[in-house]
Amino acid sequence: MKAAILKSPGIDNLVVEDRPVPKPGPGEVLVRLRFATLNFRDLLVINGGYGSQQRQSDLVPLSDGAGEVEAVGAGVTGYKAGDRVVGHFFPAWQSGEPSEARFSVNLGGRMDGVACEYRLFRPDAIAHVPEHLSLAEAAALPCAGLTAWNAVIAQGETKPGDCVLVQGTGGVSLFGLQFAHAAGATVIATSSSDAKLERCRALGADHLINYVDVKDWGDRARALSSEGQGVDHVVEVGGAGTMKQSLRAVRVGGRISMIGVLAGNRHELNVPIIVMRSIRLQGVTVGSYEHFTAMLRAIAQSRIKPVLDRTFPLAEIRAAFDHLQSGGHFGKIVIEI
Amino acid sequence: MKAAILKSPGIDNLVVEDRPVPKPGPGEVLVRLRFATLNFRDLLVINGGYGSQQRQSDLVPLSDGAGEVEAVGAGVTGYKAGDRVVGHFFPAWQSGEPSEARFSVNLGGRMDGVACEYRLFRPDAIAHVPEHLSLAEAAALPCAGLTAWNAVIAQGETKPGDCVLVQGTGGVSLFGLQFAHAAGATVIATSSSDAKLERCRALGADHLINYVDVKDWGDRARALSSEGQGVDHVVEVGGAGTMKQSLRAVRVGGRISMIGVLAGNRHELNVPIIVMRSIRLQGVTVGSYEHFTAMLRAIAQSRIKPVLDRTFPLAEIRAAFDHLQSGGHFGKIVIEI
Amino acid sequence: MKAAILKSPGIDNLVVEDRPVPKPGPGEVLVRLRFATLNFRDLLVINGGYGSQQRQSDLVPLSDGAGEVEAVGAGVTGYKAGDRVVGHFFPAWQSGEPSEARFSVNLGGRMDGVACEYRLFRPDAIAHVPEHLSLAEAAALPCAGLTAWNAVIAQGETKPGDCVLVQGTGGVSLFGLQFAHAAGATVIATSSSDAKLERCRALGADHLINYVDVKDWGDRARALSSEGQGVDHVVEVGGAGTMKQSLRAVRVGGRISMIGVLAGNRHELNVPIIVMRSIRLQGVTVGSYEHFTAMLRAIAQSRIKPVLDRTFPLAEIRAAFDHLQSGGHFGKIVIEI
Amino acid sequence: MKAAILKSPGIDNLVVEDRPVPKPGPGEVLVRLRFATLNFRDLLVINGGYGSQQRQSDLVPLSDGAGEVEAVGAGVTGYKAGDRVVGHFFPAWQSGEPSEARFSVNLGGRMDGVACEYRLFRPDAIAHVPEHLSLAEAAALPCAGLTAWNAVIAQGETKPGDCVLVQGTGGVSLFGLQFAHAAGATVIATSSSDAKLERCRALGADHLINYVDVKDWGDRARALSSEGQGVDHVVEVGGAGTMKQSLRAVRVGGRISMIGVLAGNRHELNVPIIVMRSIRLQGVTVGSYEHFTAMLRAIAQSRIKPVLDRTFPLAEIRAAFDHLQSGGHFGKIVIEI
Repeated sequence: MKAAILKSPGIDNLVVEDRPVPKPGPGEVLVRLRFATLNFRDLLVINGGYGSQQRQSDLVPLSDGAGEVEAVGAGVTGYKAGDRVVGHFFPAWQSGEPSEARFSVNLGGRMDGVACEYRLFRPDAIAHVPEHLSLAEAAALPCAGLTAWNAVIAQGETKPGDCVLVQGTGGVSLFGLQFAHAAGATVIATSSSDAKLERCRALGADHLINYVDVKDWGDRARALSSEGQGVDHVVEVGGAGTMKQSLRAVRVGGRISMIGVLAGNRHELNVPIIVMRSIRLQGVTVGSYEHFTAMLRAIAQSRIKPVLDRTFPLAEIRAAFDHLQSGGHFGKIVIEI
Repeated sequence: MKAAILKSPGIDNLVVEDRPVPKPGPGEVLVRLRFATLNFRDLLVINGGYGSQQRQSDLVPLSDGAGEVEAVGAGVTGYKAGDRVVGHFFPAWQSGEPSEARFSVNLGGRMDGVACEYRLFRPDAIAHVPEHLSLAEAAALPCAGLTAWNAVIAQGETKPGDCVLVQGTGGVSLFGLQFAHAAGATVIATSSSDAKLERCRALGADHLINYVDVKDWGDRARALSSEGQGVDHVVEVGGAGTMKQSLRAVRVGGRISMIGVLAGNRHELNVPIIVMRSIRLQGVTVGSYEHFTAMLRAIAQSRIKPVLDRTFPLAEIRAAFDHLQSGGHFGKIVIEI
Repeated sequence: MKAAILKSPGIDNLVVEDRPVPKPGPGEVLVRLRFATLNFRDLLVINGGYGSQQRQSDLVPLSDGAGEVEAVGAGVTGYKAGDRVVGHFFPAWQSGEPSEARFSVNLGGRMDGVACEYRLFRPDAIAHVPEHLSLAEAAALPCAGLTAWNAVIAQGETKPGDCVLVQGTGGVSLFGLQFAHAAGATVIATSSSDAKLERCRALGADHLINYVDVKDWGDRARALSSEGQGVDHVVEVGGAGTMKQSLRAVRVGGRISMIGVLAGNRHELNVPIIVMRSIRLQGVTVGSYEHFTAMLRAIAQSRIKPVLDRTFPLAEIRAAFDHLQSGGHFGKIVIEI
Repeated sequence: MKAAILKSPGIDNLVVEDRPVPKPGPGEVLVRLRFATLNFRDLLVINGGYGSQQRQSDLVPLSDGAGEVEAVGAGVTGYKAGDRVVGHFFPAWQSGEPSEARFSVNLGGRMDGVACEYRLFRPDAIAHVPEHLSLAEAAALPCAGLTAWNAVIAQGETKPGDCVLVQGTGGVSLFGLQFAHAAGATVIATSSSDAKLERCRALGADHLINYVDVKDWGDRARALSSEGQGVDHVVEVGGAGTMKQSLRAVRVGGRISMIGVLAGNRHELNVPIIVMRSIRLQGVTVGSYEHFTAMLRAIAQSRIKPVLDRTFPLAEIRAAFDHLQSGGHFGKIVIEI
């Protein structure tokens, strides 16, 4: 089979090679992967910047993939050949509280990922794909989708009538928009592009802010919220100066979910505002398998379609990463395997 | 002004009389009520069956009303003449935990209600009507709407992909359907009438069960739920044998919200099922003002329209109660004042 | 080794036999069990009354046991020979929400239990015993202790100053008393024996009610609570008429945890009180491994000592069950293996 | 009567003057204040640094006071002359979510405080003093006590076996220690003084760290926690470099409560650690009246005694502020009125 291999950190050391197709042992499921999608986290891995969370040599990258079950090992129930399945980001985090141990097993970091034609999974590390989704769409879900679900629904407990602000049009932000909309919230979306903002509107955004035109977009968001009290929840994906605006946007007692390893290293934080306005900053790190299946049920019910950007063949995975880094995408960049 | 007065318990003692129009003192708001709606609880009051929760003589009945601000007393902010407002069921329950004291002040029970042309309110006992609602629609919200909101959203924490079952087509059940749908849940509705079930579908129900055709509708509901595990939440409004079916419908760890004073007096309860399946039975009693305003925000955002049945003039309030008791209605019965 | 075997339902079919000592395979831990304790649930199993939750023939009974690690299989980390360990009731319920699948694997019911000298466990089905506990005391924890923890702490979220009522002096009730006391709550204990009540006081109970002397003990409990508003939480273990008193004891918005398979089959439930007072009835079914380890940390911190009744040798297990059924015990009945 | 008056910002403009004793109107309670205590927030007010939260001229300072009811106005229930009472910090925050409006009314900031012999209160802005407390001890509770309660119990939901770290020996930290201990948690206390640490041990601290001796006290705290996973909750009161250590101390998924207006203005925040370890930073701003009465119940049950430092007469209030600023105190500084 074909597999992308990161020989050592550095995009130049990312090659596509032949590898033997594995065989499913007892309790294992062999999946023929068809599509994967990219996350910024994968770019960190490629560049060796994911620290102790990544294996340094001969790593199959990418965490997010979907495909069909090729064969199942002895004792496997719940899956059969031909089933369409999608992988779970943290196989050791089945449910419950986050912990170091539950974070320590992650696809395309500490262990091989999905940028290959065939891969073995434990049955509790895959889930059935909702019927209305293509495999490419399903491959968009494991990291960006689940992170947004955790921020907006599992931890964020967004309910009808809440006001949620999402920043930009990356994968997590668009899923955040879609989940908040499905939960009945008022959604404010920001972007530097009016064209992208119109696409946000089509996905369910109620209010649009072009942050090039509106420098103090935090104040604008606050003004758009119910009685000008501030938004209930900001999904903060990082970037220069965003936190400052987020703190202006959010209401007393509100929540800012902090997401994204590219958020830059250190920020100056206005502590008195956080204290005197009872604000919650919540770090969000993907989610558990229990979160994952809950998200899939919601996606099936609300018939949410992940937003896909361009598709690249596996052989052009480097070009796909270039496209990711260039930042012009809207939604998830897809690898066809 | 005209006011309905319950001279003493008994529908025959419910008369419409002239009363002086009150004047707003400091911190008071005078409201010209335009519409009220009926709840089964009002029928209890009329019949003297609301126990210590009701005044026994010369009571203006009905808890749910909406109208326009006529005048405001000194020191009132936030309201001005002409504003469209709707009353809150428990004026002393502003927020926080339920308590005896917070339940003890209720419109059309312990204190005069809204079946009259003019009434004084404290500013924190009324709220602005969402723009897309008529005053008749707003009058549907205080008791049935808020009870459903509390059950499905505030306490129920329904999230996208959850499965909620509502029983029949009374006011609370239809609001429960609408709120669960707005929150992204899968909704199962039951009724004895296929015509009514079709109207439920139009309101957002995903699955319909005619409980005349399907005696064991609890099992049917369970089969319709995700992987047949059972529904997450049943909004139980009572009636012969419903609890037994609700216990069959609900999943391990699921919730049954218990609503409705007409639920009959005593039920035989299958305790071992509750214990061995970790089921939660939750009594629900309308809600706080903080719940009320949160619900109004959600209704505005999701553009939910309360379902209204027939409208009666105040002079025919007795006929309206007859219509309520006959049980053939779909949605709320309205009194025009 | 010696093992108690329930050949088929019926106490007369419970025998002690020789069985081969198992060997630990990869990922398995061999434990030399030293003590077990009895639960009413075990009596149900012995009598064949645990329904689909039990294997009908050749079952090693009892869920609650503690001992020393004898040997570990390949790949096991975290345990070594000589470690003192205690078993977890629901091995498949590691964390997260309850579910049918997570309840379906239980010791001494669906699968062999701990009434034997040696038994294999997965590492995630055992936990280290807190230092201050004997193995007999540790053996008291898996079912009764964890059920009380789940009711009072995990679901009950008891906080300092809350008022918790426990009924009688069975295992769950005494653990409930101890956990509520450790969490800073005011504890009201009931019993038919003044001598037992004094022992409750020594365990931390603040108020004592002899329910033989005080028929309407629900009213007494309410009077003892803060401002007579009612207790926050009743741990309801069942029995004739207890629910009626529990409903009188509990405050508006309060909680009744329902525990115990011997609670009788069906109860008449005063539904209007539950609805009009916003009461929560919560079925409680032991707990997850995450709950179990949290409980062990709390027991270590608060140096809680489980209350043990008499100890019987394994050979006299039938006499131990007789003693359980007679009802005169205070705390857990122990089997020395 | 005597009253301290801040004529305008600046400690030199704080004088003690004669003022007329007010008379209670309808719904008002006249309290003869006996003791007040100081908070750093009062120092901000004195120096004019509390911004829009303070009146700029002729302000009676101090938020925390206790005394006896002198007289009650018409219609007041629940209080009578002679009752020992303590004031609530945020009179407009009775219960429910924090909001700008609920924060906007605060004693000794926007409105007159308690540094005077007599003051009028609404009945819902005072509470009865637990019997075991002196009035000086009660006066320690409104700001520092309630902030700690909100951080550790109301929002922190500390349960038995959790591990809580408190920093230094200011008012909030000592209350945090006491509440965490009362809730059954393991408490780690830090200080620069071994003598103060021994006093912390007497209050219930389980582990002591002298941060002069142990520069990387975050690592030490982590090592002291269960299995070295990190503490569950840090009560962060600010100061140079504390946040960096707090982030090292706290477990994956743990919580850092941020408290204290003197925390300095801006901190550099290590965002990737917060994101990748799912950490929650929670600003805490005193609490509601519902929190206040819950705290008083807990204090009564656990017989917690607030820690008092020196007492100054009202005439020496400036010296008391000097003492506060010097930082050598342990517990609350008291003003006798």
